[in-house]
Amino acid sequence: MKVIVVKDYESLSKVAAQHLLGEMFQRHERVNLAITAGSTPIGMYEYLAPEVKGKDYLAHVHYYNFDEIPYFSGKQEGITISDLRRLYFNPAGVPEAQIHVLDEKNYQEQDQRIFDDGGLDAILLGIGADGHYCGNLPGTTKFTDFTTKVNCDEAMKERISGHFEDKEEIPDFYVTMGPRSVMNARHLILFASGEEKAAIMKTMIEGSITDEIPASILKMHPHLTIILDEAAAKLLDKEQL
Amino acid sequence: MKVIVVKDYESLSKVAAQHLLGEMFQRHERVNLAITAGSTPIGMYEYLAPEVKGKDYLAHVHYYNFDEIPYFSGKQEGITISDLRRLYFNPAGVPEAQIHVLDEKNYQEQDQRIFDDGGLDAILLGIGADGHYCGNLPGTTKFTDFTTKVNCDEAMKERISGHFEDKEEIPDFYVTMGPRSVMNARHLILFASGEEKAAIMKTMIEGSITDEIPASILKMHPHLTIILDEAAAKLLDKEQL
Amino acid sequence: MKVIVVKDYESLSKVAAQHLLGEMFQRHERVNLAITAGSTPIGMYEYLAPEVKGKDYLAHVHYYNFDEIPYFSGKQEGITISDLRRLYFNPAGVPEAQIHVLDEKNYQEQDQRIFDDGGLDAILLGIGADGHYCGNLPGTTKFTDFTTKVNCDEAMKERISGHFEDKEEIPDFYVTMGPRSVMNARHLILFASGEEKAAIMKTMIEGSITDEIPASILKMHPHLTIILDEAAAKLLDKEQL
Amino acid sequence: MKVIVVKDYESLSKVAAQHLLGEMFQRHERVNLAITAGSTPIGMYEYLAPEVKGKDYLAHVHYYNFDEIPYFSGKQEGITISDLRRLYFNPAGVPEAQIHVLDEKNYQEQDQRIFDDGGLDAILLGIGADGHYCGNLPGTTKFTDFTTKVNCDEAMKERISGHFEDKEEIPDFYVTMGPRSVMNARHLILFASGEEKAAIMKTMIEGSITDEIPASILKMHPHLTIILDEAAAKLLDKEQL
Repeated sequence: MKVIVVKDYESLSKVAAQHLLGEMFQRHERVNLAITAGSTPIGMYEYLAPEVKGKDYLAHVHYYNFDEIPYFSGKQEGITISDLRRLYFNPAGVPEAQIHVLDEKNYQEQDQRIFDDGGLDAILLGIGADGHYCGNLPGTTKFTDFTTKVNCDEAMKERISGHFEDKEEIPDFYVTMGPRSVMNARHLILFASGEEKAAIMKTMIEGSITDEIPASILKMHPHLTIILDEAAAKLLDKEQL
Repeated sequence: MKVIVVKDYESLSKVAAQHLLGEMFQRHERVNLAITAGSTPIGMYEYLAPEVKGKDYLAHVHYYNFDEIPYFSGKQEGITISDLRRLYFNPAGVPEAQIHVLDEKNYQEQDQRIFDDGGLDAILLGIGADGHYCGNLPGTTKFTDFTTKVNCDEAMKERISGHFEDKEEIPDFYVTMGPRSVMNARHLILFASGEEKAAIMKTMIEGSITDEIPASILKMHPHLTIILDEAAAKLLDKEQL
Repeated sequence: MKVIVVKDYESLSKVAAQHLLGEMFQRHERVNLAITAGSTPIGMYEYLAPEVKGKDYLAHVHYYNFDEIPYFSGKQEGITISDLRRLYFNPAGVPEAQIHVLDEKNYQEQDQRIFDDGGLDAILLGIGADGHYCGNLPGTTKFTDFTTKVNCDEAMKERISGHFEDKEEIPDFYVTMGPRSVMNARHLILFASGEEKAAIMKTMIEGSITDEIPASILKMHPHLTIILDEAAAKLLDKEQL
Repeated sequence: MKVIVVKDYESLSKVAAQHLLGEMFQRHERVNLAITAGSTPIGMYEYLAPEVKGKDYLAHVHYYNFDEIPYFSGKQEGITISDLRRLYFNPAGVPEAQIHVLDEKNYQEQDQRIFDDGGLDAILLGIGADGHYCGNLPGTTKFTDFTTKVNCDEAMKERISGHFEDKEEIPDFYVTMGPRSVMNARHLILFASGEEKAAIMKTMIEGSITDEIPASILKMHPHLTIILDEAAAKLLDKEQL
């Protein structure tokens, strides 16, 4: 585990983008990346999109989403992939052939598909204030789970309802790469920004391995890079860094 | 995680040796291996020693022990390194400059030293019927521990007493690379032989991640190879392999 | 470049096999190997076949031939792949899905196909007394050639005629991965045995880079391992090793 | 070989910097880079220096110069390292412990030193209109040379005289990593900008391997990335890219 602390959100966005570009440039043959939606990567994708747009020398880079909240009706693509398209794939002009959608129909093949494609070179993860990453929330998946379906109880439906204008479309379940699927990537890159992440970063980095903090397991990975801005890092024991 | 099942102890010994030789031959520059003492590797070292003895083309291979039970008096080298010398370093004629001893005096530098040396390319692990590996026994280390000192209570002293002819030499503590130190290696190779390991292999491979089974954490590593003979594999769910 | 000198043909065969097994065991995901036919590898394949036969844990290993002398009529598979089947694929029971045949019909796609498959992890090469490797003989390919077709003049037809009982089947051309195709592999392993290879090994290792010695270019590769028995190494400048 | 064509010098500088940053971020353990002085990298170092300055998370990155033109008197550091300090090490605040100077006193140990340090992860190269790279000019080194000393004839002294205010300081020789030293790096990154490089880029990329064009050998490397702006790429056969 390596903790990189940068000044602010802008630096965080740039350094995270440099990590992804580094993965892309590491090899001429196929490179596989799983990337995150959400709010943390907005700045990073703004930085990254123009570096990628129209660059045919990046045709070897393949993208995977690692979780999905489907629409109940199934009439449109889910929340995660829609976000990724809006934030990155569309502005960066990533060709469809390089986008490998995980959804409610194919989630049971996700791990085998990634293995057959050569494995993930890197996975970029955000983290929630409750210690979740991907769709691995406290009380949902176990550390030993691969990609799986998670049933939504009422609390979860409430939690995800903000994604849906039409509340009829709130689904009964979502799908996510589980902890073992994530840990199978060769490089984990986790980033967090802002004071509201300071407590969970301290817990995740300095605390014990427990199901209650899903992201706590990630520090057992041999190649985990954590990128934080000063606000998110402010509670860390400086002697340990 | 990949589970390799071979017929018997002889095959196990050979396939484990082939894995280690593969690590040695992967690169011309320095290769770092942490290897295990104990009874499981006896056959493997018998196979390996003549392949290594007198081979100056293996001068780039460096060895580390991952735990040590010292003598109380400190008058001689500890149990683990003595075993490794007897089983492998001596018959294989490994030059002293390629042997990096972990002991009670330098254990606090072990993780930094390995990092500075470029990290471990592979670590070869045995497993106990109680799920321990290295000196990580149930009730001793936590998943988050790096290399550490473990105090020996009376039960532990009893357990290790067989190693000491002179019972005055039973130590108050031992040292071991902790779970995080082990998980930091780029490749974990764990092997087990015989019916008496069948139950723990089922628990370790199919069970949950728990401190009570220290080796359960190992399956979260992105590159774990488990080598078993048929007897040790006989309780495994064949559909999962 | 690293030169490994072993005692005799038997050791050479074993050490070469250990290198290939090491490549197979380096990763759980797909591994791509190009391997050689001819007389040098006979002992190696005898050693290797039982290690591979019936081992479903080697299902991720894919094989490529790097040259082919087709039959004029095209009524049967060519000389190289037939040799490889007889020496290795058949005795080792390698499933057809793991064998990627290069022949006169698909040679123009060979480089792209290998790139799309992730690139060659290793290529095992023999060497002729004239410095040829694969079908790169003096006066045929240029260093800059990728996989290509080589026309057979009368001298070449004479040279390859021993492969054909029915002399009507001697072809007008053969196909081969060219120097650049070979140099694109991540690891080159070249082996040679016997006194009749001593002169070319000295020339190849110690001499200049010249089209007249096709194998001379190989020493510019960042990861070339040369395995020789003492007879093949006997003319080498010992100070340089 | 992969050829990346970008719009202009500014893009070239940024993409080259992204490649170097990618190398730095590929691993937490030591990373070794050999980098170029001269005019092509000026824009890149301007981009790179602020990304590196004051970043203790880049303490694992080590730098090597690959050639040196010493002062005759030996009273000050040579031309190349002085340039690198001015262009990059000083503005980026790279600590002295991470700078590994090649000079006239230690050039004979350069290859062994780099090997002992784990090998070069990447080397960034410029190219001259005559096809030279590092100090490998037409008529100086052979493809088979490792790091070596090159005597300066009158023409060479004339050529390098612009570097010296005091003409008494023009040396009789310079030192350079030779073709084999360079080819031993795991990743070659070569960049060129401007119309005055268009002809040599065509020759280097599309022409044959010849001593007269020293850089022609580089395309035999399994991992060569060439970064060009449109002006430098304008003569290339577009069908081949």
